[in-house]
Amino acid sequence: MNWKSEILAARNRIAGYAQVTPVMESRALGLDYPVEMKLEHLQHTGSFKARGAFNTLLSLDVPKAGVVAASGGNHGAAAAYAAQTLGYPAKIFVPELAGPSKIALIEQTGADLSVVPGEYANALTEAQAHEEATGAMQIHAYDAPATVAGQGTCFAEWQAQGLQADTVLVAVGGGGLISGALAWLQGARKVVAVEPETSCALNAALQAGETVDVTVSGIAANALGARRIGSICFGLAQGMTSVLVTDEAIAQAQKVLWRAHRVLVEPAGAAALAALLSGVYRPEPDERVAVLICGGNISPDPLNR
Amino acid sequence: MNWKSEILAARNRIAGYAQVTPVMESRALGLDYPVEMKLEHLQHTGSFKARGAFNTLLSLDVPKAGVVAASGGNHGAAAAYAAQTLGYPAKIFVPELAGPSKIALIEQTGADLSVVPGEYANALTEAQAHEEATGAMQIHAYDAPATVAGQGTCFAEWQAQGLQADTVLVAVGGGGLISGALAWLQGARKVVAVEPETSCALNAALQAGETVDVTVSGIAANALGARRIGSICFGLAQGMTSVLVTDEAIAQAQKVLWRAHRVLVEPAGAAALAALLSGVYRPEPDERVAVLICGGNISPDPLNR
Repeated sequence: MNWKSEILAARNRIAGYAQVTPVMESRALGLDYPVEMKLEHLQHTGSFKARGAFNTLLSLDVPKAGVVAASGGNHGAAAAYAAQTLGYPAKIFVPELAGPSKIALIEQTGADLSVVPGEYANALTEAQAHEEATGAMQIHAYDAPATVAGQGTCFAEWQAQGLQADTVLVAVGGGGLISGALAWLQGARKVVAVEPETSCALNAALQAGETVDVTVSGIAANALGARRIGSICFGLAQGMTSVLVTDEAIAQAQKVLWRAHRVLVEPAGAAALAALLSGVYRPEPDERVAVLICGGNISPDPLNR
Repeated sequence: MNWKSEILAARNRIAGYAQVTPVMESRALGLDYPVEMKLEHLQHTGSFKARGAFNTLLSLDVPKAGVVAASGGNHGAAAAYAAQTLGYPAKIFVPELAGPSKIALIEQTGADLSVVPGEYANALTEAQAHEEATGAMQIHAYDAPATVAGQGTCFAEWQAQGLQADTVLVAVGGGGLISGALAWLQGARKVVAVEPETSCALNAALQAGETVDVTVSGIAANALGARRIGSICFGLAQGMTSVLVTDEAIAQAQKVLWRAHRVLVEPAGAAALAALLSGVYRPEPDERVAVLICGGNISPDPLNR
């Protein structure tokens, strides 16, 4: 697959549908070096997922039965929003752990929503059954070329906005976003994968030399809690740097983002920064770093209490 | 006063101290036209006030007794932060209505803080008494040239970032920010002053033809609740467009910013957008508009509960 041309095509396709998200450089994070950030949590429905969802719906033929998606919450909200925008019916399956903020977000789009007991993998099973039964088109949360190319537009856009960094840190769940990062940046800049210790499907796969099932838990589980890393991601990720952060480091990074910049994000949105703040990734003295802030759907919703 | 050269000098002076804040264009606010926004609430201490505070401390001789400021909260936090950064002692007076979020923010800087009963004007009286008694330098929240020039850097920066709009909407309290906007933009773009109906010192002065005292209340009172508009502002504001928004419209604009973009701001930070969303300012069909998002110190603090 020629990922660069796929991403450029996706970028043209979703222009006007996805939000161009702002970038900034911060020296106020308590680190002795500056950090570039892209505020991708300002994207429609609060995460980068809208990029892949729009690219999927705009590049493939959507059947009459519409679309179906399984999601820890953010992908479901994005798929539902993209379907609503483009006039397709949407059926979304989320696990209970998606939580009230994300469930309310999906309900607001008018999608047909089912909340499934247990973790993300259970929602995926139900979505696959729905796909088979109805002929609806599955928008996979991370392991499909159109999804990966859509997420890759985030990094093409960032480069066009003047990204300076030698190294870009990205949080990993099922691997769609980091696949997009690797597909666009590989060879030009270093990409570092950041996962919670409590949900680390990529790290486990890189250690095992093959994709393996992991147990998922912790504060970022409803966004990063994939049981097995996607095969596209596993292929692209060979030889990459992978680090793990504690739940405590993630919670601390959330506080630092809020206190330093009034950037309020969900745990997954702060995970990549947590790798810098906790020191599990330490840049070389001349190494410039950037962090993608990927999701903002915090619970409880601060304005819906 | 040659405001443009004052603002350019301020911009050079505070470079590296003030945060360059990001800009974006949104079509997701439920309006049938796009809106440019500058996310100035990502500034240090959560509002534009850091610009004026740094410009004051970097352009004037600071006495041994340090600095003193009276503030509804945001200016006090900015003055305290700038003083801490530059190594000066700071004494801050805030009214009770500053609220726990802003009071905690000031305490974190290590400043000497006094909470004064009543509204902003009472804090100002105490700050003036402290100035006389100790020789500390008063950093006025809005009605001083160095403060206005500092706030003006926000608009110089925005222009350099590619501001397209014909019209820029700015929330008004005591008038420091809008003075900066008028000082930089007047003649080139239209500036619209937005005030809550419950705190409208500029609108009342423009109607009366002179600065007059108003009563202040409402949800934005701890940021926009000045009893009398500053004289610098009153001079610059002659003939400008001034509109008023209800507290309900402000609260609704807060919700729209959060739901559309995960931008969580205090009431004052959403007031300018409220003028568009509620229709009290309706742009012409070909008129491009921009909104400055000026403050993010919402209460209760969503991560300090």
